[in-house]
Amino acid sequence: MTAALPPSVTAARDLVEPVLREAVDRLDPLSARVAAYHLGWVDPAGRPVDAGGKALRVALAVLSARAAGGDAQRCAPAAAAVELVHAFSLLHDDIMDGDHMRRHRPAAWTVFGGSAAILAGDALLALATELLLRDGTRGGVRAARRLSAATRRLIAGQASDLEFEKRPDVSLEECRQMSADKTGALLACACSIGATLAEAPEPLVTALTAFGADAGLAFQLTDDLLGIWGTPEKTGKPQMSDLRAGKKTLPIVAALTSGTEAGERLARSLVVPGPRSQADLHEAARLIDEAGGRAWAEKEAEHLFDLAEGHLAEARMPADVRAEFLAIARFITSRDH
Amino acid sequence: MTAALPPSVTAARDLVEPVLREAVDRLDPLSARVAAYHLGWVDPAGRPVDAGGKALRVALAVLSARAAGGDAQRCAPAAAAVELVHAFSLLHDDIMDGDHMRRHRPAAWTVFGGSAAILAGDALLALATELLLRDGTRGGVRAARRLSAATRRLIAGQASDLEFEKRPDVSLEECRQMSADKTGALLACACSIGATLAEAPEPLVTALTAFGADAGLAFQLTDDLLGIWGTPEKTGKPQMSDLRAGKKTLPIVAALTSGTEAGERLARSLVVPGPRSQADLHEAARLIDEAGGRAWAEKEAEHLFDLAEGHLAEARMPADVRAEFLAIARFITSRDH
Repeated sequence: MTAALPPSVTAARDLVEPVLREAVDRLDPLSARVAAYHLGWVDPAGRPVDAGGKALRVALAVLSARAAGGDAQRCAPAAAAVELVHAFSLLHDDIMDGDHMRRHRPAAWTVFGGSAAILAGDALLALATELLLRDGTRGGVRAARRLSAATRRLIAGQASDLEFEKRPDVSLEECRQMSADKTGALLACACSIGATLAEAPEPLVTALTAFGADAGLAFQLTDDLLGIWGTPEKTGKPQMSDLRAGKKTLPIVAALTSGTEAGERLARSLVVPGPRSQADLHEAARLIDEAGGRAWAEKEAEHLFDLAEGHLAEARMPADVRAEFLAIARFITSRDH
Repeated sequence: MTAALPPSVTAARDLVEPVLREAVDRLDPLSARVAAYHLGWVDPAGRPVDAGGKALRVALAVLSARAAGGDAQRCAPAAAAVELVHAFSLLHDDIMDGDHMRRHRPAAWTVFGGSAAILAGDALLALATELLLRDGTRGGVRAARRLSAATRRLIAGQASDLEFEKRPDVSLEECRQMSADKTGALLACACSIGATLAEAPEPLVTALTAFGADAGLAFQLTDDLLGIWGTPEKTGKPQMSDLRAGKKTLPIVAALTSGTEAGERLARSLVVPGPRSQADLHEAARLIDEAGGRAWAEKEAEHLFDLAEGHLAEARMPADVRAEFLAIARFITSRDH
């Protein structure tokens, strides 16, 4: 499926970016510079550019406030806090994974060094808490608690991701849990944080959380597929970067645990240590396809999208908000995002 | 001056450690293992040992609750949160500074790898917020906000510390600000967090914060002196590790900016790149002494201790609590800690 960037995404970004910029300005000079580069606002020399991400989590957070009849403007610091946690995790993940590229640009740690990138990530995480606690309402405190819990799940997911690189026997269920932690938890938090802040009824918060968790996992599956079959123009990363790094993403683990001849050949090829040639990587991608890993991931992403849609249908919210939630879910699970 | 570990420190540690252990147990398995090692509870293989730090910040936090007539038990999660932030910062600092030893043991990143140590630090920082927000009281929220602000100052201090290594022209005022951020801010927060949590009158919180800031800077000066003239038996680190790493600590910057012949010779020796021989390091230490950096730092630490004592004298609190605060300040500014 293909999809265009929904207009609510741009509107939310315009609403929240001033709050984000004001917050980042309060950081120490080094962390502020690294963060501004990482967020796509400046080039390595500090000159303004426009290379930001789509701020999808910001849009989801603002929508969740609107779903609860809350004030989008009041939700801006919470939406900014979610984006800061996302930025923190990408800054640190790129160091740990040794990823040199992020959104078609050199990763921050390659520009400023590992120490500066570690520190900037730390600063963004602390800043997120400060932003959420600023108003001190009961909803704000609850939102801060949920964001911290989501952050810990995100960290747990990254820990499993690293561990799986060294383990040949990862089960599909373990891999699914890792992806749910790494991607689903923060997306679920983004989809519900505005409602939490507005002290919405618990059933709405629960439905939005479930929507975000399923849409988030569908998003991760799509991302995993792009990590194998996506072009650098689309992903902003080198081709087959996940395979190159020895990642155990869902399509790969689905292939490895498929019980097929192709799956067994894939397993034998992955245990060979050392760097892989372009031909090796293409052969691995072919085996994943032949073992059914690609078809499984595509079908599973569609299934999760349907589940997410079902959660939305259960929740009471304005029709236009529901439509925009769905448009974003469709966008992030399309192969074109 | 010499001093023994005050008994309130051990008592506070016994009170807070169960809360800390229960919190760390909730982390993902990898972060929990790294954190348990870093906190001195287990060896690299996960076998129980007793190699923990003195948990001075925990003791200060508990005292600050008692100063406000608050419940020490209720303050335990806040005290644990301060200790977690301290642990987070040491985990990450050791990676950035390339320090191989911490408290007479291999630093966590040398045992578990940089990625695991980055992740564990991240997890501890998120966990600290969760602990503080658990009860959701007004005092708890205020305490969480102040701990986040202190964390950002701590990060700003570390950023300056790294930057100063590359700069030959650091002023004494910049160096003092760096030390106040890096060490003073969290200690000031520790000394006041129990009072903040108990919603104590603002003058008490302010006095305790000022006490902690001055005692913290005195502590840093003492630590800087030990980083040059301390023995590995006392510091748990290699001799002259600060000089070896090219750090610009207060005694060093005091010598560099002294306008003396020895200070100028020191400056010329520090700009020579590459590793330094044992003889070079001894000569640098001698020049710092000759330029008056050592005497200045000793006098400044005593002056700050007096200022800290003055702040305590202004604040209303039980006499035994005041005496214990002072005993800890004396302990951490003694050359024997």
